[in-house]
Amino acid sequence: MTAVSRDDLLAGEAMHELAAELFPLCRSLTGDGVRETLKILQQHVPLTVHEVPSGTKVFDWTIPREWNIRDAYVLNDQGERIIDFRENNLHVVAYSTPVNQTVTLRELQEHLYSLENQPDAIPYVTSFYEEHWGFCLSHRQRTQLREGNYRVVVDSELTNGSLTYGELLIPGASRREVFLSTYICHPSMANNELSGPVVATFLGKWLAREPRRFSYRVIFIPETIGSITYLSRHVKTLKANVVAGFNLTCMGDDRAYSFLPSRKGGTLADRAALNILTHRHPEFIRYSYLDRGSDERQYCSPGVDLPVVSVMRSKYREFPEYHTSLDDLAFVTPSGLAGGYAVLRDCVELLERNHVYRATCLGEPQLGRRGLYPMLGTKESHRQVKDMLDVLAFADGAHDLIAISDAMHVPASQLYPIVDRLVAERLLEADPA
Amino acid sequence: MTAVSRDDLLAGEAMHELAAELFPLCRSLTGDGVRETLKILQQHVPLTVHEVPSGTKVFDWTIPREWNIRDAYVLNDQGERIIDFRENNLHVVAYSTPVNQTVTLRELQEHLYSLENQPDAIPYVTSFYEEHWGFCLSHRQRTQLREGNYRVVVDSELTNGSLTYGELLIPGASRREVFLSTYICHPSMANNELSGPVVATFLGKWLAREPRRFSYRVIFIPETIGSITYLSRHVKTLKANVVAGFNLTCMGDDRAYSFLPSRKGGTLADRAALNILTHRHPEFIRYSYLDRGSDERQYCSPGVDLPVVSVMRSKYREFPEYHTSLDDLAFVTPSGLAGGYAVLRDCVELLERNHVYRATCLGEPQLGRRGLYPMLGTKESHRQVKDMLDVLAFADGAHDLIAISDAMHVPASQLYPIVDRLVAERLLEADPA
Amino acid sequence: MTAVSRDDLLAGEAMHELAAELFPLCRSLTGDGVRETLKILQQHVPLTVHEVPSGTKVFDWTIPREWNIRDAYVLNDQGERIIDFRENNLHVVAYSTPVNQTVTLRELQEHLYSLENQPDAIPYVTSFYEEHWGFCLSHRQRTQLREGNYRVVVDSELTNGSLTYGELLIPGASRREVFLSTYICHPSMANNELSGPVVATFLGKWLAREPRRFSYRVIFIPETIGSITYLSRHVKTLKANVVAGFNLTCMGDDRAYSFLPSRKGGTLADRAALNILTHRHPEFIRYSYLDRGSDERQYCSPGVDLPVVSVMRSKYREFPEYHTSLDDLAFVTPSGLAGGYAVLRDCVELLERNHVYRATCLGEPQLGRRGLYPMLGTKESHRQVKDMLDVLAFADGAHDLIAISDAMHVPASQLYPIVDRLVAERLLEADPA
Repeated sequence: MTAVSRDDLLAGEAMHELAAELFPLCRSLTGDGVRETLKILQQHVPLTVHEVPSGTKVFDWTIPREWNIRDAYVLNDQGERIIDFRENNLHVVAYSTPVNQTVTLRELQEHLYSLENQPDAIPYVTSFYEEHWGFCLSHRQRTQLREGNYRVVVDSELTNGSLTYGELLIPGASRREVFLSTYICHPSMANNELSGPVVATFLGKWLAREPRRFSYRVIFIPETIGSITYLSRHVKTLKANVVAGFNLTCMGDDRAYSFLPSRKGGTLADRAALNILTHRHPEFIRYSYLDRGSDERQYCSPGVDLPVVSVMRSKYREFPEYHTSLDDLAFVTPSGLAGGYAVLRDCVELLERNHVYRATCLGEPQLGRRGLYPMLGTKESHRQVKDMLDVLAFADGAHDLIAISDAMHVPASQLYPIVDRLVAERLLEADPA
Repeated sequence: MTAVSRDDLLAGEAMHELAAELFPLCRSLTGDGVRETLKILQQHVPLTVHEVPSGTKVFDWTIPREWNIRDAYVLNDQGERIIDFRENNLHVVAYSTPVNQTVTLRELQEHLYSLENQPDAIPYVTSFYEEHWGFCLSHRQRTQLREGNYRVVVDSELTNGSLTYGELLIPGASRREVFLSTYICHPSMANNELSGPVVATFLGKWLAREPRRFSYRVIFIPETIGSITYLSRHVKTLKANVVAGFNLTCMGDDRAYSFLPSRKGGTLADRAALNILTHRHPEFIRYSYLDRGSDERQYCSPGVDLPVVSVMRSKYREFPEYHTSLDDLAFVTPSGLAGGYAVLRDCVELLERNHVYRATCLGEPQLGRRGLYPMLGTKESHRQVKDMLDVLAFADGAHDLIAISDAMHVPASQLYPIVDRLVAERLLEADPA
Repeated sequence: MTAVSRDDLLAGEAMHELAAELFPLCRSLTGDGVRETLKILQQHVPLTVHEVPSGTKVFDWTIPREWNIRDAYVLNDQGERIIDFRENNLHVVAYSTPVNQTVTLRELQEHLYSLENQPDAIPYVTSFYEEHWGFCLSHRQRTQLREGNYRVVVDSELTNGSLTYGELLIPGASRREVFLSTYICHPSMANNELSGPVVATFLGKWLAREPRRFSYRVIFIPETIGSITYLSRHVKTLKANVVAGFNLTCMGDDRAYSFLPSRKGGTLADRAALNILTHRHPEFIRYSYLDRGSDERQYCSPGVDLPVVSVMRSKYREFPEYHTSLDDLAFVTPSGLAGGYAVLRDCVELLERNHVYRATCLGEPQLGRRGLYPMLGTKESHRQVKDMLDVLAFADGAHDLIAISDAMHVPASQLYPIVDRLVAERLLEADPA
């Protein structure tokens, strides 16, 4: 496992701060929480914000009504707020309809959600496409509720409004683009949400720092309905232009590195990610497309088939904190975010550097007269120039740099200076494509 | 291992009764034993009986003379029938020429066959293409023979007649057909013979019960010369129409499940059989085409190349009772036959249901508004609809149902109701082919 | 592991004698040592000798000046030859420039080469493309050198001359050829040099003994610059004609068998070598193209891509004696050479016999009426003719004999008489190609 660099760790701390700033906002599929989130991100990268009206048909779906919530709580007999949305967004079932009434404990129980086997966690529960209201709480608290009357208040509204998403385009030399997608619809969860947008934001800042070969498109959307909405508007141009894509999620804890392939596998995104992970984090966990559960479900669906993979830290559904209040800013750390950021940045760097190479002369070139070979032939001579000769051996116009690195079993980054030197010596040329 | 259902067990008992009825008949490459066998099967399925005259050229072979035998025995000095064809067909070398003479023990020995390492078994010995007579007996009995004169009688005849086989065609919606072949030339052996025709007969009955997508052709032939004869007459239409085929042999014992692939592997028959066996009997033994030994030798021969495999219980040559009198109706059981029948029927059902599927909309459809998704989004939501979403994910017009089941690692039968529901909802459509 | 035959062992002894005759000559990239070597080989095979002038451009390289050396030594204060080229060619750095001067021990040390971890070995050191002089000695001797003045003499010359190589063409029925390359530039090393040319020479003698299907071209060249020179003159015709090639090196010790594939693998040469090694020496070591280090570096380079592999005993760089005076005629043995010779000859024999076969009739032929099948059908009948039936089963016009042998998991040599018999019976025919 490659250690995280000091620069990356600084980035990790900055990302963690940004996550902390975004954490209290109540994001959902729609609503002002999303808008506020995007506004904060705009202080870092020049996002464009798009609004798609409720009722718009997007593929098989319809944009739902916009949901906004001001307050929600449950009062006990003493008028105490025993469940309070202001303490934690997760206390309210997302998309809860307005309610203001007094109920018995028995009636209340039908609207409560808790996790018996995680008694301290508040679960994350949604009811996006069915009218419903409810409260979530720790199982420990729930078991302490006593008989009596409770006042339940959800001060929300479901209105015709719009679905909001952000889009960042960083133009490069080519119209061909790398596509990054992350979601901003889960309130107050750190790994399975905020780690994605903060890493995406910092990658965007890094990408904008110098001219790039590819264009980069980063979208900040609500999961599922957002990717479907985006695809319904742009699937043709995405299919025409996207060379590789990454779904950014669960990038901030310290436990593991994980990979989820595209549906068919073997795309440029799969190849770049596997190459980087194999050398940088050889212990990474390789999931199957059957384990999918985020927006690759849309990006890789039949007929869409974009080359999109996920490179993650601990994968959603695989860590116990998933979809509960335990997925917080203690679970997600600066070093965790730094690691997630670094591996994605390495993937992007590899894509930028990935060309099909072709040796310019038949047979091995005479490296010695170019100062590239040790003067004296000894038992050890060969080893010293092995990487260079191996690059030349596989530079046959059929292997790109990823394939050369894979064939050589050495990290691609180890080959960057070699390729540069060989190109400078005109012993190697990159195919124009 | 999937338990055998009650219905299948009833079928197993009926098949075992039929096998018992057929067991005493003296079947061989040709002759009245074959005709009587087919006549009994006609009480179950509407077989057509074909006769091909002796001397007919079939590929590289010639239909031999017809062999019929009325009686055969060896008498000792006391006139006792010490070896008696009427006790067991196997006592006579198949296709023995007529003989009626007195011989010394020494002369007799040259015409006796027994198995030293299976002293209680009567071996099955044939001399189809060389004129010869002989008797088979247990080695235990042979070692007890005393010096003296023996009268040997084989009351047989080899005459110009014909080779007889049965054919059952069950027309389906399509001219494309599933081809089932089984052999009826081994006298009084239960697994390595009768299990094949009785399972084929009961499959035929089950197939005829309702309209089918494919046509089904079942042939009851002598092994080798029979399949060569059938191919020599029908190879062109078989190559044009057969989508999958099964050689039915060794389907009745309780010990194992076995698979023998087609020569090239990967045909629809291979894929269906492996899919069913993998889930239903994951402990099945997977043989190589190098282990072949029945009519797939002809069906898969170069230039013929039909998609024919064998799904068996204990494979011929792999069980010690093979080709001896120990391969009897105690070794073959109702439950053994039921298991062989059920696995073949499952293969056929999978073929009937196997279509290339295509999702009708881009992206995942909104299952919720069709009542196909749980109203409430919780940690567990995804798992409940995982199979449905996986089917949709692989329904890309390139995967048939077998491929979808293989990719999902779930039994195809688990997908039948899902596919039906998705087709009913018009979220999935089957390719016309 | 297949035992070496008596005939092969006799050949091994004769090869060892030839190696002993060649051992003292001072071969290098160029010079009279090479010419004398080729002259001795011409007593065995009708080599043509080619001279390519110094300064000739060959691909990216230039033929260097010719190096000849008469004598070289280091004298101590007492005028004793403490390092003497006449004792061992390796004492002088190859391509050392002339020198004749007195130096202190300190000055001398800068021109000495020894191996600390192999204190008794004289290393092999070269300075082909940089002007330099030096002496090589055992580390044990080096540590015993005392302060004082030393006279160093290298009586060599670097002049415009030529690079010399030998070529043997054995025409066969076809213009398509098998290409054998070996090198003659390492002075006084037995496995990593002389084993190659002596095995090549004896293969040449064996090949010339009877008419062959393919033409055979054997070249004796200096490594690297020699193969580049040869390719620069003949790459087009080689690419057009060569069906398989072998780089002959390290073929004479007793420790191991080794295989180094072509760059892409799967060529006819790879397939033949792997087939032979798998059955003859199943314990062989299978290297990767990344482990290459001889003239396959040129023959398999991008754009050249000849089907060239190396079948070796202990591979260069993998045995401790490599590139030192310990790689001598005790390390290389008659039995070692016999084994190297035999495995190459078996590869060649397989290439000669390797045709795509096609069964002439549909279905299995009736072997019995041709005397190819046991008269009596018993439990064992099938096994006796299994190989014959398997050959017929894979003779589908898509498998060559190597592929048939591979599919059957039996040595190809076991199939030679079967194929001959089936061809004689007109049951099998070889494709014209």
